[in-house]
Amino acid sequence: MEQIVKDFQELLDEIRMYRQMMSIASFDANTVAPKASIAQRAKRNGFFSKKVFEMGTGERMKGLLEALAPHKDKLDDIVAAQYRLAKKSYDQNTLMPAELVKEYNELIAKGNQAWEKAREDNDFEYFAPFLEQIVAKTKEMVGHRNTENKPIYDMLLDDYEEGMTMEIYDEFFAKLRATIVPLLKQIVDSGKQFDNSFMHSHVPTEIQKSQAEFIAKKIGYDLDRGYITHTTHPFCSGSHRTDVRITTRYDENDFASSFYSILHECGHAIYEQSMGDDIADTNLSRGVSMGIHESQSRFYENCIGRSREFWQYITEELKGYLPQDFANITPEQFYMAANVAKPSLIRVEADELTYSLHIMIRYEIERMLFNSEVEVKDLPALWNKKYEEYLGITPPTDALGVLQDIHWSWGYFGYFPTYALGSAYAAQFLAYIREEMDVDALIAKGDFAAITKWLNEKIHTHGSKFTPEQLMEKMNGEQLNADYYCDYLQNKFKSVYGLS
Amino acid sequence: MEQIVKDFQELLDEIRMYRQMMSIASFDANTVAPKASIAQRAKRNGFFSKKVFEMGTGERMKGLLEALAPHKDKLDDIVAAQYRLAKKSYDQNTLMPAELVKEYNELIAKGNQAWEKAREDNDFEYFAPFLEQIVAKTKEMVGHRNTENKPIYDMLLDDYEEGMTMEIYDEFFAKLRATIVPLLKQIVDSGKQFDNSFMHSHVPTEIQKSQAEFIAKKIGYDLDRGYITHTTHPFCSGSHRTDVRITTRYDENDFASSFYSILHECGHAIYEQSMGDDIADTNLSRGVSMGIHESQSRFYENCIGRSREFWQYITEELKGYLPQDFANITPEQFYMAANVAKPSLIRVEADELTYSLHIMIRYEIERMLFNSEVEVKDLPALWNKKYEEYLGITPPTDALGVLQDIHWSWGYFGYFPTYALGSAYAAQFLAYIREEMDVDALIAKGDFAAITKWLNEKIHTHGSKFTPEQLMEKMNGEQLNADYYCDYLQNKFKSVYGLS
Repeated sequence: MEQIVKDFQELLDEIRMYRQMMSIASFDANTVAPKASIAQRAKRNGFFSKKVFEMGTGERMKGLLEALAPHKDKLDDIVAAQYRLAKKSYDQNTLMPAELVKEYNELIAKGNQAWEKAREDNDFEYFAPFLEQIVAKTKEMVGHRNTENKPIYDMLLDDYEEGMTMEIYDEFFAKLRATIVPLLKQIVDSGKQFDNSFMHSHVPTEIQKSQAEFIAKKIGYDLDRGYITHTTHPFCSGSHRTDVRITTRYDENDFASSFYSILHECGHAIYEQSMGDDIADTNLSRGVSMGIHESQSRFYENCIGRSREFWQYITEELKGYLPQDFANITPEQFYMAANVAKPSLIRVEADELTYSLHIMIRYEIERMLFNSEVEVKDLPALWNKKYEEYLGITPPTDALGVLQDIHWSWGYFGYFPTYALGSAYAAQFLAYIREEMDVDALIAKGDFAAITKWLNEKIHTHGSKFTPEQLMEKMNGEQLNADYYCDYLQNKFKSVYGLS
Repeated sequence: MEQIVKDFQELLDEIRMYRQMMSIASFDANTVAPKASIAQRAKRNGFFSKKVFEMGTGERMKGLLEALAPHKDKLDDIVAAQYRLAKKSYDQNTLMPAELVKEYNELIAKGNQAWEKAREDNDFEYFAPFLEQIVAKTKEMVGHRNTENKPIYDMLLDDYEEGMTMEIYDEFFAKLRATIVPLLKQIVDSGKQFDNSFMHSHVPTEIQKSQAEFIAKKIGYDLDRGYITHTTHPFCSGSHRTDVRITTRYDENDFASSFYSILHECGHAIYEQSMGDDIADTNLSRGVSMGIHESQSRFYENCIGRSREFWQYITEELKGYLPQDFANITPEQFYMAANVAKPSLIRVEADELTYSLHIMIRYEIERMLFNSEVEVKDLPALWNKKYEEYLGITPPTDALGVLQDIHWSWGYFGYFPTYALGSAYAAQFLAYIREEMDVDALIAKGDFAAITKWLNEKIHTHGSKFTPEQLMEKMNGEQLNADYYCDYLQNKFKSVYGLS
């Protein structure tokens, strides 16, 4: 038995070495690789992806999983988690016929191109037949691994966030809808607007770079085990807790863009840098789920970074970097500017209050699509109706509406809701931390150590050792509860907008 | 048979994918990887090196080489070259007992640390016992694969430059000695010195970066398939002809340092970017040998970059970048400053004329060591005697003498001479090109296309399809001939120093 576990972990270690290497290559591709090397990079990526796939589904893995199966309840925490994840991945990858997977991948490649063209031409009809096929093929594929005869959309939700179902999300979004929609209406009706034009004063990239490094360090990101650079789309890329990089995007007329993307990516990075000793050198050294991972980025970006206390602390520090234009701006002015809430069309540009409404609309539409309650051809009208209903605005074109996101063309159904989970979990964790320490006073002093330590101990150090459900259970005996998030949004935005 | 060739090439392709990946990871490690990730990088590197070693020496390779052996004279050019290289590497790696290789690698790790400490403390005696063991172990290792009972040092010379022997190098260095030693003495005796202090005027790094990009493009380096960044030690790193990166080092008080390192690395890079269609996607897409590779860097750095005609062209261009301090410097002043020749102690800082003397000293000492004509303990005295004899100066300390290079602590014996080969081949190629076109006129116009095209066709495009000997035979029916290099140095430095 000892030998089986040893062999099993050795195979997982090999897979991990490949994944680390691919992570480095992907970072390279996204930052410095010459553009003309794209074909060679794709070839190499295909080669190594296939290797990893084969290692995870081949005879060696099959034999080890079968040998471990009878003992799975007697394994220690770590091996048990490794078994669970390897088995889940093995099943996902082997229950679907290889020919179908190949057809699906070809369809996705074409569908993605079609989406690009459709968005450019504002021509949903061009994309529609591809989307229909992607939905149909996804249903077919998932059907093959649906051994427990669940609703297909539940399977997809679980793929992106273990344990999630329509039942849970329905309740979750119902609470959000009941809170955010009237709150937003109240804000719009109040007619209040702040002058935040000062946020668009010119700040040279070089200064923003120094500022980014200062903020990253201050918030707890370890640069000896990290690296900051810039890309069109900011991201965090970790291959091991000693090597977790982040990127940002510098806009000389909008310093807040890189300021907040640094805080966001630092949240992801601190998670990856804080894997515990027991799992750091295993395949469990990664975030427990997309939702919890996103909660860490939202926590640093929003719960800390958009709080009044944070601006009370950081304003003076930033003035050491920012040009003279900002000399007379008060912490309160920065705080208000960072919390403007208003209905908008584009998800990625949405503010903290309205962001989850954009997600909710996508969830509701996906849910209908997979339950055959709507046809693809009717999506633009449905999309626009929901924007009108929840945000009070109607997209003037499909390019600014139903065609704005790349995700569906990639076949990513069930992915969007995890973005909203992130914000909700962040608010829930903030409430827990508040029970143990004076969060506001710490933030106002720029002292984030105790807060980060809490997150380290309750979340980061465990990596993927537990399921999200187990992790929440251990933390406070409570599962996801949207009330925390609703309260957080109510309190904050009523205060910002002076509403009762 | 067709199937065997197909399987063989498939295995080579797999090895190549791994090597490309390791090249990307190595570039990453040398440029942006966080310092604290060193242990994880070493682990990953060890894992993949072992994979590549196993693929090149395992049962699969063994079977294919055995199956191909009876047909080796009937293989086409490309497969024949692939067979030759794979067989050579297979033999090198399998004829030595694995236990001995392991002992050797452990010794090298310790020897390298000992060298670092010895150089820091100027304490050759501390390093001596390690060096003795490294030499002894090298002899033992090479002995195992010395199936033709050659002199050990000939085996080593051939390892770094296929086809080279002491006989060839002896004649080569004899010519260099007979030319350079008296020429240098003549220069020193003339007492002539130029004021080149203007070369140390301040040039901001940002300006040097723009200048580097301009020069690289101008000389023929394709930035769509390349990337320039900075490291402590400049290098060129290519994984495929569509992805060849270079690095340089910026010294704000010595712009010529990055200027010439860019030209040097561009020489390597243009070689790697110019692999022919027939070999670009095979393991033959790399330089034919170290000496020929170095000839390309020396060609662009010295034969072009330190020529009078180049400065006639480039001076005006550079003035678009350089600060006002350089406004009145003439092309002739730049040219003279770029060609100061004087005896010095440190190889890596030596000028074009004296560089090969540093190499010759190392060659002569290695030759004696491996022929048991000198003992390690006597190396400092021997080193100093040779510096006095050839360069007329004596190192004041061993740190500035026999301990200056890292190579011997790595067990790199037979490597140094390839550096001198590079310069000699470059001069030889220049002479060939001169027979076909008016090189001086082209350089003076800044028109390098025809020159590069010649190198492309005669050298670059073939990659490793031929042996160095075959390549030279095809080029002009002539092998390495030091006369070209000696004439080049005579003509140039007599002109620079106005000697008869």
